[in-house]
Amino acid sequence: MSKIKNNSPVLFFYNNSKKWLAKISKKESLHTHIGVIKHSDAIGKEYGSRLITNKDKYVYLLEPTMYDYVMKIQHGTQIVYPKDLGYIIARAGIGDGQKIVEIGTGSGSLTSFVANIVKPRGHVYTFDVDENFMKIAEKNIKKAGVSKYVTQHNLDLKTAKTMPLEEMDAALIDLGDPWIVIPKVRQMLKGSGCVFAICPTMNQLEKLTIALVENEFTDIESTEHILRTIEAREGKTRHSFQGIGHTTYLCFARKAFFERESRQLTEKTPKKIIKKPASKTTVKISKKISKKPS
Amino acid sequence: MSKIKNNSPVLFFYNNSKKWLAKISKKESLHTHIGVIKHSDAIGKEYGSRLITNKDKYVYLLEPTMYDYVMKIQHGTQIVYPKDLGYIIARAGIGDGQKIVEIGTGSGSLTSFVANIVKPRGHVYTFDVDENFMKIAEKNIKKAGVSKYVTQHNLDLKTAKTMPLEEMDAALIDLGDPWIVIPKVRQMLKGSGCVFAICPTMNQLEKLTIALVENEFTDIESTEHILRTIEAREGKTRHSFQGIGHTTYLCFARKAFFERESRQLTEKTPKKIIKKPASKTTVKISKKISKKPS
Amino acid sequence: MSKIKNNSPVLFFYNNSKKWLAKISKKESLHTHIGVIKHSDAIGKEYGSRLITNKDKYVYLLEPTMYDYVMKIQHGTQIVYPKDLGYIIARAGIGDGQKIVEIGTGSGSLTSFVANIVKPRGHVYTFDVDENFMKIAEKNIKKAGVSKYVTQHNLDLKTAKTMPLEEMDAALIDLGDPWIVIPKVRQMLKGSGCVFAICPTMNQLEKLTIALVENEFTDIESTEHILRTIEAREGKTRHSFQGIGHTTYLCFARKAFFERESRQLTEKTPKKIIKKPASKTTVKISKKISKKPS
Amino acid sequence: MSKIKNNSPVLFFYNNSKKWLAKISKKESLHTHIGVIKHSDAIGKEYGSRLITNKDKYVYLLEPTMYDYVMKIQHGTQIVYPKDLGYIIARAGIGDGQKIVEIGTGSGSLTSFVANIVKPRGHVYTFDVDENFMKIAEKNIKKAGVSKYVTQHNLDLKTAKTMPLEEMDAALIDLGDPWIVIPKVRQMLKGSGCVFAICPTMNQLEKLTIALVENEFTDIESTEHILRTIEAREGKTRHSFQGIGHTTYLCFARKAFFERESRQLTEKTPKKIIKKPASKTTVKISKKISKKPS
Repeated sequence: MSKIKNNSPVLFFYNNSKKWLAKISKKESLHTHIGVIKHSDAIGKEYGSRLITNKDKYVYLLEPTMYDYVMKIQHGTQIVYPKDLGYIIARAGIGDGQKIVEIGTGSGSLTSFVANIVKPRGHVYTFDVDENFMKIAEKNIKKAGVSKYVTQHNLDLKTAKTMPLEEMDAALIDLGDPWIVIPKVRQMLKGSGCVFAICPTMNQLEKLTIALVENEFTDIESTEHILRTIEAREGKTRHSFQGIGHTTYLCFARKAFFERESRQLTEKTPKKIIKKPASKTTVKISKKISKKPS
Repeated sequence: MSKIKNNSPVLFFYNNSKKWLAKISKKESLHTHIGVIKHSDAIGKEYGSRLITNKDKYVYLLEPTMYDYVMKIQHGTQIVYPKDLGYIIARAGIGDGQKIVEIGTGSGSLTSFVANIVKPRGHVYTFDVDENFMKIAEKNIKKAGVSKYVTQHNLDLKTAKTMPLEEMDAALIDLGDPWIVIPKVRQMLKGSGCVFAICPTMNQLEKLTIALVENEFTDIESTEHILRTIEAREGKTRHSFQGIGHTTYLCFARKAFFERESRQLTEKTPKKIIKKPASKTTVKISKKISKKPS
Repeated sequence: MSKIKNNSPVLFFYNNSKKWLAKISKKESLHTHIGVIKHSDAIGKEYGSRLITNKDKYVYLLEPTMYDYVMKIQHGTQIVYPKDLGYIIARAGIGDGQKIVEIGTGSGSLTSFVANIVKPRGHVYTFDVDENFMKIAEKNIKKAGVSKYVTQHNLDLKTAKTMPLEEMDAALIDLGDPWIVIPKVRQMLKGSGCVFAICPTMNQLEKLTIALVENEFTDIESTEHILRTIEAREGKTRHSFQGIGHTTYLCFARKAFFERESRQLTEKTPKKIIKKPASKTTVKISKKISKKPS
Repeated sequence: MSKIKNNSPVLFFYNNSKKWLAKISKKESLHTHIGVIKHSDAIGKEYGSRLITNKDKYVYLLEPTMYDYVMKIQHGTQIVYPKDLGYIIARAGIGDGQKIVEIGTGSGSLTSFVANIVKPRGHVYTFDVDENFMKIAEKNIKKAGVSKYVTQHNLDLKTAKTMPLEEMDAALIDLGDPWIVIPKVRQMLKGSGCVFAICPTMNQLEKLTIALVENEFTDIESTEHILRTIEAREGKTRHSFQGIGHTTYLCFARKAFFERESRQLTEKTPKKIIKKPASKTTVKISKKISKKPS
């Protein structure tokens, strides 16, 4: 049984919209409108215990999970929600030991979540161009306790000439124009490696799908995920009146080789392949998007 | 670059409803209605390459991911779908190194998926009472390559007197009557540990929620997850005409201690606590389900 | 072309959440936080025209539709939303000339909406027991301009011995315990007449379905209706971030006769049938709910 | 109580996927795989009664509603589903006495449904260019019993110079390129009249919305409607495993006048207004779509 000590991370949980993530520090107090919470009161207690505020309200002392860190990390623009994070992991089959490339570090929430799953033998290589965001992400990744499994790169993949990585198991893209980096992503992925892009609009899905076909990806799938909360109560069970709106659409695909020559592939061939079929396959787009090889 | 060899696992992928998972075996052939696929043709190719059937159709040779194994594992009754699997991982914050208890092994698909995430330092302990199912699950877990990280127990937790595990990070329940095992599950969980139950009906959610409150769980949340497929095509983007129906509802919670005495908790107390508050808290149920400690 | 006069109804429309329904009255002004709207400014204008407030904001002068009246009518507890209203009309095939019985007048919004569709040859007979609600409903029905096609009854159908109506085309139930009035509703409906009940909880659906089977209804269907708003914008089309939550579930059925004797039915038989089969059919419930007559 | 006679319309109802709409004809029989149904057996029975097939299965003799006609009318391409039909009625406030213009008659199902609601004092004017479709629609409208309230026009509104109608309460558009007819539709609508377009793709919504803004419509709203079936059964209530997929998106708007000059509007002005603002408003599109007049 692990007891809370000085420096232990704690989620002070009142309810799902009132909760505070903190590192216990003997002399600190948290001032909330359900009362003052003295950090020192938590020391020596078991995780899951209650603590009374000076307004006689209870908060639970929960051991933070990766979910709590992800929900805490606030993005300038938007975060990737657990319902979407979870599908990325499940559909791309991400697990221990994988090497993941992420384009668009953002706040570092997706980075931290994935690193927590591929560690200790896997790694996340993440790219961004915004120095300020990168610093914020660095802090968030550190708080989430996964810095050891993440490498941050300041590099613009859109203009980069050589790719610093290869044989990646999966690529995660969180950019406004994901279709632009697809040829670069392809070079970094292993054969049949997975790609996932966060696309808030339908137009992004459309452009990205065209780029994925042109760049020889298969098993292309665009989805959206609706999470509905149910209030289960004796004799009065129903969905929640409060609705959950749109977060993002997701687009998935796997790297393939459309040319027959792929049979005699050598290390160098991927680059050639990217250039050639783009023009050849254009006319076949509609057929190919229907995901039937021909 | 990894090339396909004899004994390599391969997903022969034609499209999302026509795909075959196999282990390459020199002399074997796969007979499908898009033609015959000779295993030997795959040997020496890079994953992602195409292969032509004798009916002049292409299949892609994909390296199977955990997703492919999970979708392949067919259950007698039902499987847990990736959209639901993913949310379980994300909401409970499951990651490398965690110790997970599963009640109801079923086909072993949830078992394999979770083991792939907690390995190599974590472990899944899974319980079932049906010998036949356990053998099927054993095979499936082996095929998914995670046997080393899974321990199967033949034990009926509903009647068991002593719990064989303790300090588990999370518990996953896939039983018709999940509420019955909640007191047992509680004993095995660490403080603030997570529980997730697969509940196909609203009535199960209702009974389970009552049991979770009586057994001092907090952050109780019932959800359902709707996955919609989008057909992204130039100038014709829309949701898929083919709908995806109900799979299951999910119920999540975290272990807490409702009594103030929890402050001076010793190793032995959890058992006492389970017995006492059940009757005391009954009258407060409606308030507590609203997730406000008081 | 109809121009706005004194006493004309107008919807001052700023946007979908800021709009005001009024009857033009020469000397009145509407004070809003987008400025003052002088009623007299609207007189002589065509519907659809703009009007400038003293804060230099525009409002459109729209001719109110039944939708605007329904959205305006605020209920003590809840209103029936257009998405649900519409399905009731469409699924029950409600149209001109039908005779409708409504149990639970509430605010009169459903009453008004339906009266507007069955008029001028049809009629809505609506029952309530709360004098205060009935007065509010009376005003709302008058404002909506359909008083002539509505008769309000102060009668508790749960205890009433004789039914004041017969051969109704459809019955609409908006009560907390709809299953209780099903035998009474049956007596008022014509053969194969439709019933629709507003059921906010799953438990109500469950109890009501059992009562519908016991009282010989067929084509039983429980549904829920999710309306999602899409923000269609050039190059940035996506679902709205703001979600719409649960409003209610709906339960539909049509009156049938389960007994073979129904072949020689006379005017009097319905009452006998109601009493007898209730007990006989209990054991067959699960089969019957699956909607297969045998 | 109305009894079934020769020539009466009947819905032979086995379950929601096995049902047959017919006009009773003494000598006819219906051959189905649940057995032979002799029409003459239905004569003299009350609607709602059962009838036994020669395979000892029951069918109910239901009086067809407009829902049954609409579901029966099969379109070459697609039908408008009740969930969508209902919302059109509710959101546009369609009721008795209204004059409706429909562009794209299709199978006549939407036509019949709306005619049944606006009759006897209202009317539906419907336009199509395909002679064959128009004949099919004519038959369907006749079967649904609303021919008297429908006028079919063979006219291509895209190229027509003068509009044959004016002061319409609402316009319904079911065309592949609805944006093209918006200026024509505007001329036929009364001030603040409603328009609804059936748009199966997101791209149509996008183009249509731009056209609606350019043509001075307000209260623009794009929606989609998800209908979920619930299987309500004692102790086992859950959503249906069978999912309902995408049918169409809907786009609604109301005719407004953006120019201040609209205050002194004369009968002729609408035409001028249509031409001018198209160019002026282009730059303001994003602001206007957000539905705030300024």
